[in-house]
Amino acid sequence: MRLCVIAGDGIGREVTEVAVEVLTALLPGLQIMEHEAGWDTFCRTGTALPEATLASARACKAVLFGAVSSPARKVEGYRSPIVALRRALDCYANLRPTRSLPLAAGRPDLDLLIVRENTEDLYIGEEQSDGETATAIKRITRHASMQVAKVAFELAARRARQRLCIIHKANILPLTDGLFRDAARAAGANYPQVAVDELLVDTAALRLVQAPQAFDVLLAPNLYGDILSDLAAGLNGGLGLAPSLSVGQGVAIAEPVHGSAPDIAGQGIANPVAALLSAAMLLRHHWQLPVKADALESAIRQLLSAGIATADLGGTASTRAFGRAVLAQLAR
Amino acid sequence: MRLCVIAGDGIGREVTEVAVEVLTALLPGLQIMEHEAGWDTFCRTGTALPEATLASARACKAVLFGAVSSPARKVEGYRSPIVALRRALDCYANLRPTRSLPLAAGRPDLDLLIVRENTEDLYIGEEQSDGETATAIKRITRHASMQVAKVAFELAARRARQRLCIIHKANILPLTDGLFRDAARAAGANYPQVAVDELLVDTAALRLVQAPQAFDVLLAPNLYGDILSDLAAGLNGGLGLAPSLSVGQGVAIAEPVHGSAPDIAGQGIANPVAALLSAAMLLRHHWQLPVKADALESAIRQLLSAGIATADLGGTASTRAFGRAVLAQLAR
Ligand SMILES: CC(C)[C@H](C(=O)O)[C@@H](O)C(=O)O
Ligand SMILES: CC(C)[C@H](C(=O)O)[C@@H](O)C(=O)O
Repeated sequence: MRLCVIAGDGIGREVTEVAVEVLTALLPGLQIMEHEAGWDTFCRTGTALPEATLASARACKAVLFGAVSSPARKVEGYRSPIVALRRALDCYANLRPTRSLPLAAGRPDLDLLIVRENTEDLYIGEEQSDGETATAIKRITRHASMQVAKVAFELAARRARQRLCIIHKANILPLTDGLFRDAARAAGANYPQVAVDELLVDTAALRLVQAPQAFDVLLAPNLYGDILSDLAAGLNGGLGLAPSLSVGQGVAIAEPVHGSAPDIAGQGIANPVAALLSAAMLLRHHWQLPVKADALESAIRQLLSAGIATADLGGTASTRAFGRAVLAQLAR
Repeated sequence: MRLCVIAGDGIGREVTEVAVEVLTALLPGLQIMEHEAGWDTFCRTGTALPEATLASARACKAVLFGAVSSPARKVEGYRSPIVALRRALDCYANLRPTRSLPLAAGRPDLDLLIVRENTEDLYIGEEQSDGETATAIKRITRHASMQVAKVAFELAARRARQRLCIIHKANILPLTDGLFRDAARAAGANYPQVAVDELLVDTAALRLVQAPQAFDVLLAPNLYGDILSDLAAGLNGGLGLAPSLSVGQGVAIAEPVHGSAPDIAGQGIANPVAALLSAAMLLRHHWQLPVKADALESAIRQLLSAGIATADLGGTASTRAFGRAVLAQLAR
């Protein structure tokens, strides 16, 4: 078994270090291939996602991605490596679960899963500007909408509540978001056991704030999925806890939802839970090792219950100390 | 003084009835011109926004808009009349305040204002589809960005905290959202007293959930403003309380953020507070009658404090009963 590790920039390096240590403990034979990507890489080499990194990701079929920084202004030749990686590996579905953890800060009884389309929408990078007027293309295809919808329905069918809510803004975008909605409904026809619903993205934001417990699976185009998953992370104690897994044609990318957090980078205080929970998703969904995934998730829950946590959660543990505590918990 | 009233569909009719009664009490000489728009109008006449309605809105310079229903699927010839009205009247800035009300349901100490660009972005209606691939154009101009930014900075300069946060997704959309951000920053140069900040829209959603009290004015492109203002309404007890005012070149549209709510329409139980607070915005910002605006807002607050409220807030008042209570409170 091989894992391509792309630590990236800032706290990406700190949290992947811990996640790699824990994965190696759980999977003794795991081969780790470390590769670079991100803003530092771009500044040094002129490309944010080197060929060697992409080739290794393809070969390993499993990627652990930390986080990358982006420039504040448009820089010629720079494109977000994580967006490029998701597309290049055809990881067309981004799974972003929110489950309540034993923490005072978050809302209780959350158990929702956002399935975010990962390859198109406004993320295709087709923009133009003459300095006065700028346009960007939002592209939605039936193909991409159906394939992400299948993943979402497949997962919804295996959950207790078997509910799926399609997110769109088809009152304003009847052709693009309407296509997404209709393709999703068509994909759902094969899953009669799943109750399908739909909501405008603005209404979904409101309902998530008011009654997030009512949601089971949410299926969203790329950009709405981006916004709503941060919103959901906010309901659950913040980005330090929010994992994700991008899946598609046999390759998976585990990736914490948080960014490179330049403000706290290098201090050893970043919360590794999001990276660890992303690693657990890799164990569960990609390597089909649910027992190990359960063990890792339950170790994290036990530590948090015991008040062992990083500073963002009001605790005193360093990134590495939390990692060591997870290893100790797993070794019990 | 004249007011063009466009009640629209569903509960739009019920809540505007109350708001008109209250405005008439506050402004004895007010002339009310009732006009139609919306889905019912489209079904009957083939146009959702008749010329006579638009002409009256232009002539009155002040509009009270209720709510309209939209079809679930694309209907040839139908376009959202409220979006068309905002553009036709060049009401380029949509002011969406969230202030805590004396209610157990909402978060305390909220006092933020979302200023939403109101004429472009993905709302321009330029979509194409061949059934398999659909595209929509997101358009951002320096002109529209600057003019909405000026409104936002002007309002921020008059607020206690004098802070303004620009919302964008320029890491993915450096040309369009980057233009919005840069134009906003340029407009801000004339307001050195206002502290300017920026946030990615996903991060803004997270922070609004975690610490909404930290926000003062948020300036957002059309779609992000739509999503974030519903989120903010969710923090504050729901859409039944969220007002808005669209302003621009001398014409103003007061409009509750909620929709036509077909599920409760016709029952007389809709919450008229959002429409009443929108009317108060018209009094304050458009007619420059802050004393009357204060009186109306404080009447609403007093009723809510006393537990007089509609069913969505756990009360027993009907729409009309709440309206009568406001009139009684104002007459004291
Ligand atoms: C860093 C950025 C490109 C990324 C995105 O927008 O997808 C991030 O916000 C995320 O949610 O993974
Ligand atoms: C009804 C719809 C067109 C409208 C919008 O998207 O602007 C509504 O959601 C709003 O927020 O006013």
